[in-house]
Amino acid sequence: MVILGIDPGFAIVGWGVLESYKGQFRVMGYGSIQTKAGLPIEERLNQIFDGMNTIIDKYKPDAMAIEELFWNTNQKTGISVAEARGVIITSAYRKGLKISEYTPLQVKQAVVGYGRAEKKQVIAMVTSILKLPKPPKPDDTADALAIAICHGHADSNVLSKFYKM
Amino acid sequence: MVILGIDPGFAIVGWGVLESYKGQFRVMGYGSIQTKAGLPIEERLNQIFDGMNTIIDKYKPDAMAIEELFWNTNQKTGISVAEARGVIITSAYRKGLKISEYTPLQVKQAVVGYGRAEKKQVIAMVTSILKLPKPPKPDDTADALAIAICHGHADSNVLSKFYKM
Repeated sequence: MVILGIDPGFAIVGWGVLESYKGQFRVMGYGSIQTKAGLPIEERLNQIFDGMNTIIDKYKPDAMAIEELFWNTNQKTGISVAEARGVIITSAYRKGLKISEYTPLQVKQAVVGYGRAEKKQVIAMVTSILKLPKPPKPDDTADALAIAICHGHADSNVLSKFYKM
Repeated sequence: MVILGIDPGFAIVGWGVLESYKGQFRVMGYGSIQTKAGLPIEERLNQIFDGMNTIIDKYKPDAMAIEELFWNTNQKTGISVAEARGVIITSAYRKGLKISEYTPLQVKQAVVGYGRAEKKQVIAMVTSILKLPKPPKPDDTADALAIAICHGHADSNVLSKFYKM
């Protein structure tokens, strides 16, 4: 199964594509969609929509795993990020991807084995699990790969339960 | 100019289309896009995207006026509404509409002449200004028409200033 992991954002959307098979991963690609401050909001949202379509057309993932949103103290940022997340989910749905959501706690638990792990531990584990030459940049990209790993684990757990029946 | 007014929502998106000329309005259509509770979020967001496309294709508006979001106490609702708003804005942008945002205060000021007007006053004024046989239902639809009126006034003010030069 090919998984697209997404760390939702308005200025930066982190993305990573993994092929997952029995808890093993092959990295297909990763990066970020970045939108410029100062552009009209509708143009930035549309860049995210276009960027998602391009990534999905290129890698043809079966599933998208995306982080759930929790409000931070900056409500203005929160609104923009949620607007972007709506656009991301819609683009994936329209391309036929199955969509799953994970909390930051679930992602950290899956990748580091500890739900309250620090960001640098997550990045280090992502780099190690995927045998990357160096930590992916920006951090949003590493987070997106962590979300994809989380979904790969969740999915292989579901499958192993299924096959035991 | 044909204006599409939108009251953004996740369960209910109110919409109204007006032709505006020198501060006068002709009603072209109004209604609401409603998405069912219990459906997956991605399906509901996609229904909003499809609904927007259908309305825009039918009425071919030049501009969309949409209400700005402010958080209420229910953060879960706030996230969903912002996600829907991102989808609405993206669909309008992709159809070539010029997009404007107004605060609830601006809308009430434009329609009732008083920024702290109550909802029922707004509905009564919308019904009267547009010479509707009865108040539009649900309230979200009346709000959407109020937003379209607000944009019509703002735009005709801009034009009258322009022609005086």
